[in-house]
Amino acid sequence: MTERVVLAYSGGLDTSVAIGWIAEQTGAEVVAVAVDVGQGGEDMNVIRERALACGAVEAVVVDAKDEFAQDFCVPALKANALYMDRYPLVSALSRPLIVRHLVKAAREHGGTMVAHGCTGKGNDQVRFEVGIGALAPDLKVLAPVRDSGFTRDKAIAFAEEKGLPIDVTKKSPYSIDQNVWGRAVETGFLEDIWNAPVEDIYAYTQNPAEPRDPDEVVITFEQGVPVAIDGETVTALQAIQILNRRAGAQGVGRLDMVEDRLVGIKSREVYEAPGAITLITAHQELENVTVERELARFKRTVDQRWGELVYDGLWFSPLKEALDAFIEKANEHVTGEIRMVLHGGRAVVTGRRSEHSLYDYHLATYDSGDAFDQSLAKGFVELWGLPSKIAAKRDQRFRKDSGV
Amino acid sequence: MTERVVLAYSGGLDTSVAIGWIAEQTGAEVVAVAVDVGQGGEDMNVIRERALACGAVEAVVVDAKDEFAQDFCVPALKANALYMDRYPLVSALSRPLIVRHLVKAAREHGGTMVAHGCTGKGNDQVRFEVGIGALAPDLKVLAPVRDSGFTRDKAIAFAEEKGLPIDVTKKSPYSIDQNVWGRAVETGFLEDIWNAPVEDIYAYTQNPAEPRDPDEVVITFEQGVPVAIDGETVTALQAIQILNRRAGAQGVGRLDMVEDRLVGIKSREVYEAPGAITLITAHQELENVTVERELARFKRTVDQRWGELVYDGLWFSPLKEALDAFIEKANEHVTGEIRMVLHGGRAVVTGRRSEHSLYDYHLATYDSGDAFDQSLAKGFVELWGLPSKIAAKRDQRFRKDSGV
Amino acid sequence: MTERVVLAYSGGLDTSVAIGWIAEQTGAEVVAVAVDVGQGGEDMNVIRERALACGAVEAVVVDAKDEFAQDFCVPALKANALYMDRYPLVSALSRPLIVRHLVKAAREHGGTMVAHGCTGKGNDQVRFEVGIGALAPDLKVLAPVRDSGFTRDKAIAFAEEKGLPIDVTKKSPYSIDQNVWGRAVETGFLEDIWNAPVEDIYAYTQNPAEPRDPDEVVITFEQGVPVAIDGETVTALQAIQILNRRAGAQGVGRLDMVEDRLVGIKSREVYEAPGAITLITAHQELENVTVERELARFKRTVDQRWGELVYDGLWFSPLKEALDAFIEKANEHVTGEIRMVLHGGRAVVTGRRSEHSLYDYHLATYDSGDAFDQSLAKGFVELWGLPSKIAAKRDQRFRKDSGV
Amino acid sequence: MTERVVLAYSGGLDTSVAIGWIAEQTGAEVVAVAVDVGQGGEDMNVIRERALACGAVEAVVVDAKDEFAQDFCVPALKANALYMDRYPLVSALSRPLIVRHLVKAAREHGGTMVAHGCTGKGNDQVRFEVGIGALAPDLKVLAPVRDSGFTRDKAIAFAEEKGLPIDVTKKSPYSIDQNVWGRAVETGFLEDIWNAPVEDIYAYTQNPAEPRDPDEVVITFEQGVPVAIDGETVTALQAIQILNRRAGAQGVGRLDMVEDRLVGIKSREVYEAPGAITLITAHQELENVTVERELARFKRTVDQRWGELVYDGLWFSPLKEALDAFIEKANEHVTGEIRMVLHGGRAVVTGRRSEHSLYDYHLATYDSGDAFDQSLAKGFVELWGLPSKIAAKRDQRFRKDSGV
Repeated sequence: MTERVVLAYSGGLDTSVAIGWIAEQTGAEVVAVAVDVGQGGEDMNVIRERALACGAVEAVVVDAKDEFAQDFCVPALKANALYMDRYPLVSALSRPLIVRHLVKAAREHGGTMVAHGCTGKGNDQVRFEVGIGALAPDLKVLAPVRDSGFTRDKAIAFAEEKGLPIDVTKKSPYSIDQNVWGRAVETGFLEDIWNAPVEDIYAYTQNPAEPRDPDEVVITFEQGVPVAIDGETVTALQAIQILNRRAGAQGVGRLDMVEDRLVGIKSREVYEAPGAITLITAHQELENVTVERELARFKRTVDQRWGELVYDGLWFSPLKEALDAFIEKANEHVTGEIRMVLHGGRAVVTGRRSEHSLYDYHLATYDSGDAFDQSLAKGFVELWGLPSKIAAKRDQRFRKDSGV
Repeated sequence: MTERVVLAYSGGLDTSVAIGWIAEQTGAEVVAVAVDVGQGGEDMNVIRERALACGAVEAVVVDAKDEFAQDFCVPALKANALYMDRYPLVSALSRPLIVRHLVKAAREHGGTMVAHGCTGKGNDQVRFEVGIGALAPDLKVLAPVRDSGFTRDKAIAFAEEKGLPIDVTKKSPYSIDQNVWGRAVETGFLEDIWNAPVEDIYAYTQNPAEPRDPDEVVITFEQGVPVAIDGETVTALQAIQILNRRAGAQGVGRLDMVEDRLVGIKSREVYEAPGAITLITAHQELENVTVERELARFKRTVDQRWGELVYDGLWFSPLKEALDAFIEKANEHVTGEIRMVLHGGRAVVTGRRSEHSLYDYHLATYDSGDAFDQSLAKGFVELWGLPSKIAAKRDQRFRKDSGV
Repeated sequence: MTERVVLAYSGGLDTSVAIGWIAEQTGAEVVAVAVDVGQGGEDMNVIRERALACGAVEAVVVDAKDEFAQDFCVPALKANALYMDRYPLVSALSRPLIVRHLVKAAREHGGTMVAHGCTGKGNDQVRFEVGIGALAPDLKVLAPVRDSGFTRDKAIAFAEEKGLPIDVTKKSPYSIDQNVWGRAVETGFLEDIWNAPVEDIYAYTQNPAEPRDPDEVVITFEQGVPVAIDGETVTALQAIQILNRRAGAQGVGRLDMVEDRLVGIKSREVYEAPGAITLITAHQELENVTVERELARFKRTVDQRWGELVYDGLWFSPLKEALDAFIEKANEHVTGEIRMVLHGGRAVVTGRRSEHSLYDYHLATYDSGDAFDQSLAKGFVELWGLPSKIAAKRDQRFRKDSGV
Repeated sequence: MTERVVLAYSGGLDTSVAIGWIAEQTGAEVVAVAVDVGQGGEDMNVIRERALACGAVEAVVVDAKDEFAQDFCVPALKANALYMDRYPLVSALSRPLIVRHLVKAAREHGGTMVAHGCTGKGNDQVRFEVGIGALAPDLKVLAPVRDSGFTRDKAIAFAEEKGLPIDVTKKSPYSIDQNVWGRAVETGFLEDIWNAPVEDIYAYTQNPAEPRDPDEVVITFEQGVPVAIDGETVTALQAIQILNRRAGAQGVGRLDMVEDRLVGIKSREVYEAPGAITLITAHQELENVTVERELARFKRTVDQRWGELVYDGLWFSPLKEALDAFIEKANEHVTGEIRMVLHGGRAVVTGRRSEHSLYDYHLATYDSGDAFDQSLAKGFVELWGLPSKIAAKRDQRFRKDSGV
C-alpha cells in the first residue's frame, strides 16, 4: 500500500507546490491539512479545493478557532505570557494546535509521515517537530524546505512546469503569520534594525496616532478566563475577537522588537496583538487585586518560564503540565471586572472590582475607618531589617580594619 | 551635653511642626536635613530658613540631584527595575539616598537619634529604618507619627499654639511624593479602586489624549548608562530631566495600579515617570540587541529580585550588592543608540544601532547573503525535543494502560 | 459566660503551669490540647490527667500520627524539603498540624483565644500565629512567654506556690522538639558553634562510627508516596517509623548546622531524622530516574521555595497551595523501587527500578544495541553554542580594540 | 603549506591511533596536546614520546594542575557546584581548561583545526566544541569518532596495520575520566541501573565500611578559597590533593546516580570526589555562618544555574561571567575555619569559627546575656502573616458560599 504524508497546508504557493513535490520525492500520497486558527484570508473551502487541485489525495480543513482560544490562548492569558516581557506568543501558540490536528489526520487517514514547510532557522520547525515527537513519536517528519532544498525559486519553477493552479507572481515582501491571538511580520526592510516599521505593514491595528474618540470597555473574568465584555456573556474566542476589533481600532497592541530565537540567533519582529495585549493587561491588574503577594511574586518566575517553554517549542512537555497546574491554582480567585480605556495605542486600566479582592479599603485608607494597627509596624521593621543590620555591622568592622 | 536628633525634613507642615514636637518630647536639639532629589517646589533656602524658624538648631540642605541620578536611578535603569512589572521605584530609590545624608549629618552634627515622619502602614518607614540600621546601627530611630501619636490634627494644634510660621490650611487631598525619577500619588478618592484617576492629579505629564505632534529622540547608552540625547552629551541627571520634559509633554509614563506593600496590605497607587519609563523602555530594547539569550533570561529573575529588594527597603543589604555585581557585568556591552517616538502617552522604539550588537543580519536574513547553515537544525531539533519525546512515550504507555 | 482559652499543651512544666497562669491572668477557662505527632515520651492519658490536675476545664488528646505522616510528611517528601539543603523541617511540619487541632478544639469547646508557649526569638511563634490567623482569623492569640513575662523561674515559683503536681527539678540542658519526622536539639553548650555535639544528645540514632552489619532495604513508591518496605505494604506512617528504626540503628540522619531563622538571627541546630533523610534520598533518586530534565531543573526552584515557605510559617498560604499543585503533578510518575544500603551513618542508593523510568538502556548504552543516532549531535552542538559563540566574537573584538 | 590539526591527546589507544587516522583523512599534520589535570597514570613525557612515535609533528604536554585548581575548581567551590544536587562537575570542569590549551597550541603551532575523540552521545563533545567556538571561532572542529566512523574496532585495526607502539589488548570494561577534582566511571554492568557498584571500580576512595580511626581536619578559607589545612598554608591544588588523600582514605565522596545529559538522555554515573565533596561541605557550612539570609537564599538559585551552565558546556559564556560576579561578591566574607571529622564515608562538620561570622551568641542564646528584644516579635509575626491572613479570610468566604 502506498504510504501517506500528512502536510501542514496553508493554501499558499509553497505548501501548494509541496504537495506535488513531496509526492514526487517520496512516492507517497499527500493528505493536506489546513487549520483555521483565525488567520482570515481565503475561505477554507477554497483552500480545500486548491489542495485537491494540486494533487492531494485528501484535503482536511478544520475550524479550530474556538479550540485555539480555549485550549491555547486562555492558558497563555492565565500565564500573562509575554516572551521577553513583550511578545504574546502568537505563532508559538498555534503550532501545537496544528500539530494536534496533523496527528489526528495521520491517524484517520493512515499517514506515516508528517511534513511542514518551515525553514531551518526559525522557531516553528522546532514547535512542529517536537510536538509531533511528543504526540506521535512513531511518525516520521519531512521538512522539504530545510532538508531537501525546496526553495521558493524551485517551487515556482515546479508550479509552472506542472501547471498548478496557483498565482506565483504575488509575493509579500514580508513573512507574515497571523491568527486570532495576533499577527507577526518579519523580514524585508525590517531586517535592518535601525529602520522603523511603516504603516502599511499593519493589518490588525489602526494608526494609534490618528485622532479618534476613546473606547471604554469592562472585561469580566472568572478564574482568569474572560467571560463577559461590557456585561455581555462571551466565549473566550468572542472576547478575543471583540477586543481585536475594538482595541485594534484604537491602535493598541503593536510591538517592534529584537528577539532571541531558539536556534541561537537574534531576529527582528513586528507584532500586532490588540486583543491579546488588552486581555493580558486586564488580567495582570486583576491578579494585582486578587492574588496574594508571595504567590504573585513567585508566579512571575513561573509565568516567565512558561513563556520560554512555549516559545521554545515545548508545549507538550512535562514541565509545561506542571507549570499549568501551578498557574491554574493561582487563577482560582482571579474573578472580577476590569474597566479599561482603549485609546491612542494604549489599553489603560481605570477601575477594578472583585468579590475576591484582597484590597481592603479599611486597611489601606488613611481616612477615618483605618483598621490597620500601626503599633505592629515597629517590631516588624526591626526584625525585617535585622539580618542586613547584623551584616552591616560586620562589614563596617572589616572596612574599618582595612582602612576604608 | 544636650542630645541631638537629626530629622528628615521636607519643609511641609508635618515635619516643620515635628521640630518643636520632638524637641519637647525628647529634650533634644533638632537638626533638620532637607535633601533635594528633584522634588521641585520651594527653594531649598526657603526650606532651610523655615526649619530654623521652627526651632531647628541646624538646618542642612543638600542638592543631591546628581548623586541621586548616578547612584540610585542609573542602577535601577540597569536593572530595568519595575516592581510588579510596572512601578519604577520612585520613592523607594530616594529613601536610601536620604538615609545616607541623615547619617552624614548625624556624624557631622553630633546626632545620636534620627527621626522621620512616616506612618506605620507604608513602605517608607521600613526604607528609612532598615537603611539607618545598616549604615549606622548605633543611631536610635524616632518615628513620632507612628509611635507617639503625632497626628495631623495634633500638628496643626501645636503649630497654632506655638505660632509657627507655617500655613496650616492648605492640604492636598492626596499624599504625594516626587523626585527626578517620578511622582507618586495616593489616597483620597483613589482609595476606591473602581474610581479612575482624574486629570488634575498629574503634574509631570500632559494629557496623552490631546492631539500634538510626535517627538523623536535618540538616546545613546554606554554600558547601560544614558550618555547622550540626540547626540548631545548629557549627565545621567540631565538625561532624566530632558526626558521628563519631552516624554512628559507627550503624556508618557502614567501608571495606575494596585500594589503589594511590604507591610502586608494592598494599596492603590498612581505614578508618573515619563523619563524613567522612556529610559527603561530604551534600555530594555538595547539589551535585547546586545545581551546574549541565556544571560538575558536569567537577568529577568535577577532584575525582579532587585526590584523587590529595593521596594522592600533592603537597598543597603548583602544581596543587593551581589545582584549589582551581576547586573553591572550584564551591562558591560549595553552600548549603542535607541531611536524612539514619544507620542500620545507611548514611548515606542523605532530603531537600534550598536557596535556591540549580537543581531547579525547575515544570520537573520532570508535574503541572499544568508550565512546560517540550515542543515544543522535537524539534529538540534531532534535532540532538543528528545527528553520530552521520551517522556511522552512513557506517558502514553500509562495512559493506554489506564484505558484513557 | 466565661471565655475559654485553648492552650497548646505538651505535658511539660511550662505549659502545665501555664494553665493556671493563663486562667489567673485572663479570668478565662483553659482547654488543654495535646497532639501526639510521634514525640514519644509519656502516655497521652497521663498527659491528659495532668492537664486536668493543673486546672484545665477540658483536656483534649489527639493521636495525629497518621494524619501527620500523610498530610504533612508526605508533601514534604514529594518536595524533597530540605531547608538550606539540609534540614528536613521537623518542627516546621508539626506546627500547622497542631494549629489545625487547636482551632478544631476552639470550635468544639467554645474557645475564643488560643495560647502557645513559644518564645519571641524562635520560628514556632510565627508558625502558630500565622497558622491560626489563616484558619481562624477571629481567634485571639496569647503568647505568655513572649508577651507577659512568663519565664521559667516564674513558672517554677507558680507551680510550687500552687502545689501543682509537676516535677520542677528535672531540666534538660537542651531545648528539644521531636516527632515522627525527626528530632531537634538546640541551646546549651551547642550555642558555642565551635563545640562538636556529644554522643548523649542523640536519641533517634545510634553512633554511626560503631561497627555493625549493613542493612539493605528496598523502598517502593507510588506517585512519590512510600507504599512498601522490602515488599511489605506499609502506610506512610509505618514507612517513616520502620526507617526511623532501621536507619536510626545505622546512625543515619544526623545533622549539625548553623541556620537562618525567620526572625532574623542565625542559630545552631542539631537534628536527627533517620527516616526522613532515608526517604528523601530515595525519593530524589527515583525522581532522577522518572522525571524529565527540564521539569527536574525547575522543580529544584519550586522545592526550595516550598521549604522556605514552610520553614517561615506559611503552610496555610496561597503560594504553598500553588506550589503543591506543581509538586503533585511532578510526582505523577515517581513510581518504582529504590534499593539502599543503610550503614555507618549513610543511606546509599544502590539500585533503582521503575516501569516509569525515563532511563533508556538502548539510548544510554555504548554496547551493541545502541539506538542513539549520533549524527544528530553535530547540529545540536553547533546551534546550542551559537549564542555564546556570537557573543564571544563580539567580546573579542572589543577586547582587541581595548588592547587586551 | 600543510594544514595542522591540534588534537586533544590522552595517550590512550583511541587518540594515539587518531593521530595517524586524522593525518590520513585530512592530509594535515597533527599536533598532539596532552594536559595534566591530575589524572595520574603515565608520566607526561612518556605520553609525549608516544604521540611523536605515532606520527605527531609536535607533541605539547602541559602541567595544568595548579591552573585547573585555581581557575576551575575554586570557582566551582565558591558556587558549591553540585549538578542535580550531587555531582561536583568533575569532567565538566576540565574540558574548558583543555580547550584553553588546545587553542593556545593552535595559535603557537599554526593549527587551523582542532580534533577531539568524543562520541556523539556524551556531554564532552559539547564542552569541547562550544568552548572552541567561544575562544577561537575561526578554528574548525573535527570529531572523528562521532562524524567519521572512527570506532574502536577500526582504531585497533589501524594500529595493527601501521604497527603503532600501542597495547591494543588492555581495555577497561568501564569508561573512566579522572582529574584532581574527582573521578567518573560509567558503562559496563553499571548500565543496568538496578546493579550496585562493586568495590573494584573505585580508585580514589577506600571502602567506607571498613573499620578505621576517624581523621579530624581543620580547613581555613579566605573569601571562599581554601588557604590552610590544619593550620598549614596550602595552595588550592594542595588543599584538594591533601583532602583527596585524607578523605579518600575514609571512603568519603562516592556518588552513584542517574543523571540528565545535555544531549537529552539519562545515564548512570558513578563518581568519586573525596576532596571536592569535603571542601564543598565545609564551604557550605562556612557560608551558613557568614552569609546573610536573603543572599544565601538567592545564591542557591545562582549556584544551581552555574552548575547547569557548566555541565551544559557553557563555561565560556556571558551568563557564566555574570553569575561569577555575583558569586565572587557573595564569597567576600566567606573567611574562617571549619573543623570536620572524616570517617566511614562521611565528612561531618563539627565546628566553625570566623571573624566574619553573622552568628551572634548574644542574639541566639537562651541563657543570660540574651540581647534579643522579644517584644519586637509580636508586630513582626502579625505583619508577616497579614497577606496570607487576608487571603484566608477571602478563601473561607468562598468556601462557605460553595457549601464546603
